[in-house]
Amino acid sequence: MQTGRFVDLIHKKKEGRPLDEQEIQDMIRQYVAGEIPDYQMSAMLMAICFQGMNDEELTALTIAMRDSGDVADLSDISGVKVDKHSTGGVGDKTTLITGPLVAACGVPVAKMSGRGLGFTGGTLDKLESIPGFRIDLSEDEFLGAVRSAGISVIGQTGNLAPADKMLYALRDVTGTVESIPLIASSIMSKKLAAGSDKILLDVTTGSGAFIKDIEQSRELARRMVAIGKGAGRETVAMLTSMDEPLGHAIGNNLEVKEAIETLKGNGPEDLREVCLALAGMMLALGREGLSYEDGKKLAEEALDSGAAYEKFTAMVEGQGGDLSYIEDPGKFVQSACHRELAARGDGYISHMDTEGIGITAGILGAGRETKESEIDYSAGIIMRKKLGDKVQRGDVIATLHSASEEKLDRAEGYMEKCYTLSDHEPEPLKLIVDIIC
Amino acid sequence: MQTGRFVDLIHKKKEGRPLDEQEIQDMIRQYVAGEIPDYQMSAMLMAICFQGMNDEELTALTIAMRDSGDVADLSDISGVKVDKHSTGGVGDKTTLITGPLVAACGVPVAKMSGRGLGFTGGTLDKLESIPGFRIDLSEDEFLGAVRSAGISVIGQTGNLAPADKMLYALRDVTGTVESIPLIASSIMSKKLAAGSDKILLDVTTGSGAFIKDIEQSRELARRMVAIGKGAGRETVAMLTSMDEPLGHAIGNNLEVKEAIETLKGNGPEDLREVCLALAGMMLALGREGLSYEDGKKLAEEALDSGAAYEKFTAMVEGQGGDLSYIEDPGKFVQSACHRELAARGDGYISHMDTEGIGITAGILGAGRETKESEIDYSAGIIMRKKLGDKVQRGDVIATLHSASEEKLDRAEGYMEKCYTLSDHEPEPLKLIVDIIC
Repeated sequence: MQTGRFVDLIHKKKEGRPLDEQEIQDMIRQYVAGEIPDYQMSAMLMAICFQGMNDEELTALTIAMRDSGDVADLSDISGVKVDKHSTGGVGDKTTLITGPLVAACGVPVAKMSGRGLGFTGGTLDKLESIPGFRIDLSEDEFLGAVRSAGISVIGQTGNLAPADKMLYALRDVTGTVESIPLIASSIMSKKLAAGSDKILLDVTTGSGAFIKDIEQSRELARRMVAIGKGAGRETVAMLTSMDEPLGHAIGNNLEVKEAIETLKGNGPEDLREVCLALAGMMLALGREGLSYEDGKKLAEEALDSGAAYEKFTAMVEGQGGDLSYIEDPGKFVQSACHRELAARGDGYISHMDTEGIGITAGILGAGRETKESEIDYSAGIIMRKKLGDKVQRGDVIATLHSASEEKLDRAEGYMEKCYTLSDHEPEPLKLIVDIIC
Repeated sequence: MQTGRFVDLIHKKKEGRPLDEQEIQDMIRQYVAGEIPDYQMSAMLMAICFQGMNDEELTALTIAMRDSGDVADLSDISGVKVDKHSTGGVGDKTTLITGPLVAACGVPVAKMSGRGLGFTGGTLDKLESIPGFRIDLSEDEFLGAVRSAGISVIGQTGNLAPADKMLYALRDVTGTVESIPLIASSIMSKKLAAGSDKILLDVTTGSGAFIKDIEQSRELARRMVAIGKGAGRETVAMLTSMDEPLGHAIGNNLEVKEAIETLKGNGPEDLREVCLALAGMMLALGREGLSYEDGKKLAEEALDSGAAYEKFTAMVEGQGGDLSYIEDPGKFVQSACHRELAARGDGYISHMDTEGIGITAGILGAGRETKESEIDYSAGIIMRKKLGDKVQRGDVIATLHSASEEKLDRAEGYMEKCYTLSDHEPEPLKLIVDIIC
C-alpha cells in the first residue's frame, strides 16, 4: 500500500470488502509511524464498527498490533505458562485467588496485570492495598519470584502493543469503542504480547459487565478464541455471570480481605465456584492430559488443604508485602464512615444493576476518575444480600464504607436504585454460563 | 453541546438516532472554529455514510453550512432570480445555452459558476476559452452586466460556505465522499449561499454521471429538493440522462463552438432538447403562472428567433470577450494533431462508457489534473456517432483533438474500450428521465 492511498483502504472497508494481511500490517505500521493521520484512522475505525472484520482480518490486525512493540519472553520459566484475562466486573478479585490455586498445583503464574480506570481498582491496585507490596519488580526479580514462589503478579513492563494504546486513545474520543472486533483485537494484542503459552479468557456477561448482552458476550469470546488460534496460542473463553457483584466485597482492601478468607476456605460460595472453575481450566490448559473436571478437583484440593493460601503468602512475601496484614486482616486500614443500606420493602431481590453498584463504589472512593486520581483503599461496599435472597423492609442490603458522610449520602442515593424487589423468587443464577474453545 | 462531548454526538449518530437542529448548528460552528478536531469529524462523517440523515437533519446541516460564510445578496437585481446547477457530465455545455435562452425571455441570469477539477473544464473554463472573456468582474460590474445584458456568468466571489470546503476536503481523504445526504448538503449549501430565489437542479444519471444508478440519482434529487423546501427556496430537480456525451463536442472551445451553433439553430438534437427543457423549467420557476410546457415553448421561440443568440453575444461583449470569435468560430485556436477513431466492427452502438470518454478527453488535455494544471482549450473529442447509430467497420466513431501524437496514442487506446457494438438496435434514450419537485 502506497502512503497517501490509505483512502482506498477506507473505501474498501466501507464497502464491506475484507482487507488482506499485507494491507492490515501496513496500516498498523504506518499509523504507529505517524504516516497515517488520525482523521483517516478514525474513519477506518468507524467503517470497521459498521462492517466488522472476519477472523482472518482480525488475526492479522491483532498480530500487527502485538508486533508494534515488545513481546515478553517468558522462556526462562520452565513449564507451560497460562495467562488469565477478565473483561472486568464488579467485585472481581478472581486473580488474587486463581493465581495461588494454579501455582499450588505446580503450574507457574507469571502475570502482568493492569490498573483499573473504572469504578474500582484493578488487580494491581488491590495488591498495592497490602502495605509494602511492590508491583514494580525488575525483570530479574519477577522471574526469580516466579521460580521461588511459583507465582508473581506485576505491572506491565516494556512497551507492549503501543499500536493498541494509540488506537484505543483514538477510539475513546471518536465513538468507536463499542465494536466486538475492535475490543477483541485490543485485548488479544496485549495478551499475545504478554508472552504466555496459553490464554484463558474470563468473559463476563450481564448487568455489571462491559458487554451486558449474552449473545454479544458470546460473540466477543468466540472472536478472541479465533484470534488466539490464528496466532498459534491455545485460547479458551469462559463466559461468567456478572449479574450481581462477585462475592460480597467491592473495593480494594475489602476485596483483598475477602480473597484471604476465600483462600482460608471461608469465602462466599459464588466466588469460590468461579475461582475453582477458572483455576480448573487454567490447570487443564497448563498440564498435558488433565481434563477441566480433574483440574477443578485439583484446585479444590489445593484450596481445602491450605496449599493455595500458602502460595498467596509466598507471593506477598516475595513482593515485599507485610505478611502481618495477611495473618491478621483486621490490621487493614478501615474507612472512617459507614452506613447501612436498609431494604425499602419486602420481597425477593430479583435484579441488581451491577454496574450501578460499581459506580456507587466509585462514588465512595474505591476507583479513580482520571489516571492521576488517588484511590481510597478502604472505601467500598460489603453486600449483605445476594440475588434471590428474601428480605424484609429494613433488612440491611449492603454496608457502605467511605472517608466522608458526604460521599455516603451521594452513594446511598445512587445505590438505592440498584436493586429490584419482586414477589417471586427469581431463577438461580448460572455462574459459569458457557465455555468456548 | 459542551465542547469535548462531541463524542456523545458521534455515538448518537452511530446508533442511528437523529441529531437535533441545535446539535447540528453547534457541530458546524465548532468545526469551523477549530474546536472539533478532524479525527472526530471524520468519524461522524463515516457514521453519517452508514446511518444517513433525515430531511430535518439535512436541512439543518445545509443551512448551518450556508451560514458559515457569506450569503450573496442579489436584491439589487429586480425580478425572480433562478439558479441552475448541474451535478456534472461529459459534454455538458447547457449553461452556455440555457442562460441566454432564459435571459432572452426576460428572466435575469446572475450566475456564479465553478471551475472543473475533472476530465474537462467547468463552465468558467469554457467561457475563458473565448479570448478576452473575463470571469472576475467586480460586484458592481457583475450587477451592471446583468442589468444591461440581462445575463452575466462569473466565478464565485466571497467566502461561500467555507464549512463545505472544509468538510469536502476531509471527506475526500477519508472515504466519505459517496453519501447521498452529504453530497446533497454540499451542493445545496453553496446554492443557498449564492443568493438566488429559486433553484433548478440538473441531476445527471447514467454512465457519465457522478452517480450512475438511477435510483440513487433520484434519491439525491429528492433530498436536495427537500433541503430547498426546508430552507424556504423553491427547488425543482430534473433527472437528465448522461448515458452518452451531450451533443457531439467534448472539450472547452469545442463545446463553445457547439453552443454557438446550437444558439444559431444548428445544434445537435439531444443538446437542443435538454437545453429547452432546462430553460423551460427555469422560466416556469421565474415567471409567476407560467407552466413548464409554456416555458419550453417560450424558450424555443427565443432560440428560433435568434433572440437567445443575441443575449449570448451581449453577455460575451459585456464581459470583454472578443466578438469576432463568436461571429466566426473558425478563428478559435485548433489542435495541432487529430486522429479519427474507426469502428472496430459492424453493429449498433448499444452502450457508451461516458465517464471513460470524459477521461479520454482529459488524456487529450481538456481537463486539469491538479488545481494548478493548465487547460488546453482546443483539446477534446468530436463524437461522430451517437448511441443507437448503426456503424460499419472502419466508420469514424469520433475525432480526437490534441497537442501531441503521444497523447492521441494514449487516448485512442483508452477510447477504444468506451463503446459497445451489438446486433440489436438499443432502446432510444430518454433524455429527460424525471422531474422531481
